Amino acid sequence: MYFASDNSGPAHPQVMQALTEANTGFALPYGADDLMQDVTAEIRRIFEAPEAAVYLVATGTAANSLALSTLTRPFETVFCSPVAHIHEDECNAPEFFTGGAKLTLVGDGDKMTADALRAAVANEETRGVHGPQRGAVSITQVTERGGVYSLEELSSLTAVAREFGIPVHMDGARFANALVKLNAAPADMTWRLGVDALSFGGTKNGCIGVEAVILFDPARAWEFELRRKRAAHLFSKHRYLSAQMHAYLADGLWLRSARTANDNAARLAEGLEKAGAGFLHPTQANMVFASFPRAVHQWLHDAGALYYIWNGALDGADPDEMLGARLVCDWSVSPEDIARFLSFF
Amino acid sequence: MYFASDNSGPAHPQVMQALTEANTGFALPYGADDLMQDVTAEIRRIFEAPEAAVYLVATGTAANSLALSTLTRPFETVFCSPVAHIHEDECNAPEFFTGGAKLTLVGDGDKMTADALRAAVANEETRGVHGPQRGAVSITQVTERGGVYSLEELSSLTAVAREFGIPVHMDGARFANALVKLNAAPADMTWRLGVDALSFGGTKNGCIGVEAVILFDPARAWEFELRRKRAAHLFSKHRYLSAQMHAYLADGLWLRSARTANDNAARLAEGLEKAGAGFLHPTQANMVFASFPRAVHQWLHDAGALYYIWNGALDGADPDEMLGARLVCDWSVSPEDIARFLSFF
Amino acid sequence: MYFASDNSGPAHPQVMQALTEANTGFALPYGADDLMQDVTAEIRRIFEAPEAAVYLVATGTAANSLALSTLTRPFETVFCSPVAHIHEDECNAPEFFTGGAKLTLVGDGDKMTADALRAAVANEETRGVHGPQRGAVSITQVTERGGVYSLEELSSLTAVAREFGIPVHMDGARFANALVKLNAAPADMTWRLGVDALSFGGTKNGCIGVEAVILFDPARAWEFELRRKRAAHLFSKHRYLSAQMHAYLADGLWLRSARTANDNAARLAEGLEKAGAGFLHPTQANMVFASFPRAVHQWLHDAGALYYIWNGALDGADPDEMLGARLVCDWSVSPEDIARFLSFF
Amino acid sequence: MYFASDNSGPAHPQVMQALTEANTGFALPYGADDLMQDVTAEIRRIFEAPEAAVYLVATGTAANSLALSTLTRPFETVFCSPVAHIHEDECNAPEFFTGGAKLTLVGDGDKMTADALRAAVANEETRGVHGPQRGAVSITQVTERGGVYSLEELSSLTAVAREFGIPVHMDGARFANALVKLNAAPADMTWRLGVDALSFGGTKNGCIGVEAVILFDPARAWEFELRRKRAAHLFSKHRYLSAQMHAYLADGLWLRSARTANDNAARLAEGLEKAGAGFLHPTQANMVFASFPRAVHQWLHDAGALYYIWNGALDGADPDEMLGARLVCDWSVSPEDIARFLSFF
Repeated sequence: MYFASDNSGPAHPQVMQALTEANTGFALPYGADDLMQDVTAEIRRIFEAPEAAVYLVATGTAANSLALSTLTRPFETVFCSPVAHIHEDECNAPEFFTGGAKLTLVGDGDKMTADALRAAVANEETRGVHGPQRGAVSITQVTERGGVYSLEELSSLTAVAREFGIPVHMDGARFANALVKLNAAPADMTWRLGVDALSFGGTKNGCIGVEAVILFDPARAWEFELRRKRAAHLFSKHRYLSAQMHAYLADGLWLRSARTANDNAARLAEGLEKAGAGFLHPTQANMVFASFPRAVHQWLHDAGALYYIWNGALDGADPDEMLGARLVCDWSVSPEDIARFLSFF
Repeated sequence: MYFASDNSGPAHPQVMQALTEANTGFALPYGADDLMQDVTAEIRRIFEAPEAAVYLVATGTAANSLALSTLTRPFETVFCSPVAHIHEDECNAPEFFTGGAKLTLVGDGDKMTADALRAAVANEETRGVHGPQRGAVSITQVTERGGVYSLEELSSLTAVAREFGIPVHMDGARFANALVKLNAAPADMTWRLGVDALSFGGTKNGCIGVEAVILFDPARAWEFELRRKRAAHLFSKHRYLSAQMHAYLADGLWLRSARTANDNAARLAEGLEKAGAGFLHPTQANMVFASFPRAVHQWLHDAGALYYIWNGALDGADPDEMLGARLVCDWSVSPEDIARFLSFF
Repeated sequence: MYFASDNSGPAHPQVMQALTEANTGFALPYGADDLMQDVTAEIRRIFEAPEAAVYLVATGTAANSLALSTLTRPFETVFCSPVAHIHEDECNAPEFFTGGAKLTLVGDGDKMTADALRAAVANEETRGVHGPQRGAVSITQVTERGGVYSLEELSSLTAVAREFGIPVHMDGARFANALVKLNAAPADMTWRLGVDALSFGGTKNGCIGVEAVILFDPARAWEFELRRKRAAHLFSKHRYLSAQMHAYLADGLWLRSARTANDNAARLAEGLEKAGAGFLHPTQANMVFASFPRAVHQWLHDAGALYYIWNGALDGADPDEMLGARLVCDWSVSPEDIARFLSFF
Repeated sequence: MYFASDNSGPAHPQVMQALTEANTGFALPYGADDLMQDVTAEIRRIFEAPEAAVYLVATGTAANSLALSTLTRPFETVFCSPVAHIHEDECNAPEFFTGGAKLTLVGDGDKMTADALRAAVANEETRGVHGPQRGAVSITQVTERGGVYSLEELSSLTAVAREFGIPVHMDGARFANALVKLNAAPADMTWRLGVDALSFGGTKNGCIGVEAVILFDPARAWEFELRRKRAAHLFSKHRYLSAQMHAYLADGLWLRSARTANDNAARLAEGLEKAGAGFLHPTQANMVFASFPRAVHQWLHDAGALYYIWNGALDGADPDEMLGARLVCDWSVSPEDIARFLSFF
């Protein structure tokens, strides 16, 4: 009963198999391996973006920070949700990689709205040289609270960016989960709306540790390569990143795994709802934010269930008191796990 | 006939096997996995350093830059060889990670000498607040030209550091190759001499992509962890780094692989010598810097041999002209490869 | 009728006179001039802080950013008001000087409250290595809206810092204005409450361009000196900074000028109140935030009055509509200016 | 007998007078003052560069670092002399302002030669993404050893930059001294040769503290303004920078003062030569590097002469031993000072 995160389960066997298969003979290092050529071609095909520049790194924070540093100058500010991973969970990595750019928090919820974004962007550059200048907008899709922006919502955000002539980054650590939820074409959720750079996640969806950064406008591709190397994120034995991403994309594994994860979450949420739990956020992808009595948390805890208590702490006096849980599913969660989890209610 | 680098061969089967075995069930992320506890214990045991802090990252540049940024402040200068990897091959990563510290090049050769180091260190801080202050000394062992500092040489360098009260970093991307060459105890080549932080390489010696940073003085361990996260080098699915390092250390695989690589290089050098080649640098570990006629290079090239031409370019008029070659061996080079290579002479 | 800012009037004649007098013969550069010794001694005396380290720079942003960079590490966050100068008006200078530290905005008003600060500080470091760590608290006294924290308010803020073991910076660009308002001893408004580093402003209070940074704990004085040089803020002909600060402190000029400025603002506010103006913020030091009909703004504008329209823009249809004004007084404002300004109502 | 530096004498009375005159009434802050418009116009006229962007800062290190950070990206390297001020005397400021760019030292003397520069530049970018990329060339005119590049020498250096398509910065802290030495037009010593950005010094030539940065190509002017503000080098009471520069340029004061300083140095050198002193470097501008017996140094020292001992330390056994002296003249050195100095020989 492991629902702590989608970074704690095993990699998908096909990914591991690809790694093993890649482990033979000589391969050119630093991204010049043959597999990487296939990866680039496949991503361009999937995204209908024949010009896109594609790079692999091993962590989501690297993907985000490198992408942002290519889009944003040190005297600018990045616009993002107050609960964005880049703000809360990257220990100032975006500030580091950009050379000291600021993050401006938009609104006070999980999703940014176009109105709040427009107000925040408009408010910058009213002070001339004294305040930071307008930098990139960073949109998290799936959001940190398990929400999925609709294409309309995304379009309204990117319209604001276009209005002010600023670039758009998408943190797609759970890109596949959003895509299958929306049943959208990758291009429709990205560059057709005006997304300039995408962190395309693999790690949380069954890989070992690989994320692609896709620059739909390749104009700054070489700068990206230099920034990646300078940040020590260029792998010498790059084939092992390529192999993961290659397997991830092959035969739609990335979409299947995301669908499985989303379905697991939906099943879990359905069961929780029937059991009388409340919900802190709607379940739209692979994360469930539910609320149920402290006593049930305690039973689950005693039985070895692992997940984050979301608001408050487990030890308290009142067993009936409602307490939040963040429950994350990946491809590897089994129906038995879910059934067992629900059996405690 | 692949002698381009020790980052181009396959990972050792035991490393890959360990990865596969690690790929089951749940594991705590971000270094809290059980395997990492074993790795830390094992490294402390091997280095006779029960207090040492041990961290894993995926690239050598990350290991070096993070270690240096923990030892050096932005208004200081790092002392290193003019051909050090941190100077020539990391695209300003040390400058980036340290927040703008300088690198001061010591001497004009491959190895630093104690005299040159003392002169360089003494020359700093003669300008008070105007010049950079003395920061860490960084020693590359094995050097970039395949040299191995003797324990006496190392000791004379660390004595200079002690004299001036500055810390010592060792870039041990090929640490094992040096160790087996010197037949030394790990502690004798590091902290007993005064090395404060070690980049302990795995990638070039049969791993997929893993380096340990060993802080013999754990006082700044937490700072290191924050810097690692901030630089996006903290792996969520950390078990796959741990598993590599675990297998690497188990049963002395790291020493066996280094010995094999060194032996391969020795065999290659021996053959080259017999064939009349010259040598640009002595062969002390797993790298051979040889010089032989352009015509032989051409034959090798046509036969698919891969290695770096070291001084000049292949295409030239005079087939008898001597041209350099950098030939690097890892554990996976076969006797047949070497024999075939030599057959062209 | 110049109320645009306290950086737009002339320097006090005594300051200019001191500069002229300093302009004779040889003087040691880089802060080794005799005048600087006097300045240090005098500031230590005034602040009852015989150990304090004292440095001069030419801009308030330099004072703030250098002080913060000495107190805060790059993986930490500074706590400040959302309208703090360091956040809104320094074009990411604090982020630059700290190497990428974050600014966490406390509350949504001008002044920070202890409760909001405690909540903000407590909320950091709940994510371990993933989020930024707790850095300095920065308090602006006088605030950007002309407010003056009482000693009790300051004490409640510094108590939070002490509770969490984090340092305190005070942005005292208008320190003198606050001090005379509170009629407090400098020590009582700073180190006795727990302020570690003070930006002690001179520029806005009758100097040409000089601010002192006072480090009450001199432990990091040398680091400060290096950071000042590295940021290009160490003056070679330092005597001209010293002379300004020397004259500023002599015979209580700094306090007299601040008192004059505050009195000017009080007189202006009194007249505006009588004239029926509203107030956006209470007038506590040398800044008045008043609200009056657009038509009056237009008359003032036509007569050459200079000040910032505070909410909205001057050109509008309804002459009766209320519009805000920020009116800043320095020592040089004359009673005639104020009388003339009020005559338009 | 003050020959320690050209930053230790008084400012020229005309500069101080201009400051006093500027100290009246209201002036727009942050560079919007009327005087700055005149300064810009005058510099454009003097340099025959009607499009040039002109900015003022207060220190030479600020001028250099800001100019370089506008020309150089963090993954690049700046080419300069091993004794350049930006390398030896700015405490890593260029590294800080550029976000971690490297400095590559060209040759081992004071002046760079075109051959050494070409070799150094050619040597970069031979490692693809691994090494730093080619950034700006920085030429110091007058050099740190008092040398003046001829127009031919400058032209051969800028030709190398043009050959590789990289920008050129000139550190002209003593620009006027070089110009009068060469009797050249400002345009001929700068943009006509291919200089992109000039640090145009005032401080060492009779000002209090002001340097202009002249961007001959204004394309990155706005970026420069943002970088200046972000580095805390934008003065609020900017008129006092403008007034200095205004007076400096008026009636050729800058050229007259430089000529006086050069003449002083020539007279001093002439006298030293007659007295039998040796010379470490030729005297071409306002600096003399002479060598004479330790005993004479001691007499001068006892009589209160101030200057830097250049090679070695004053206290030694042998009174006949030759010891170096760096003797710097500014506009304020009197014939009596020189005569008295020479009287000790």
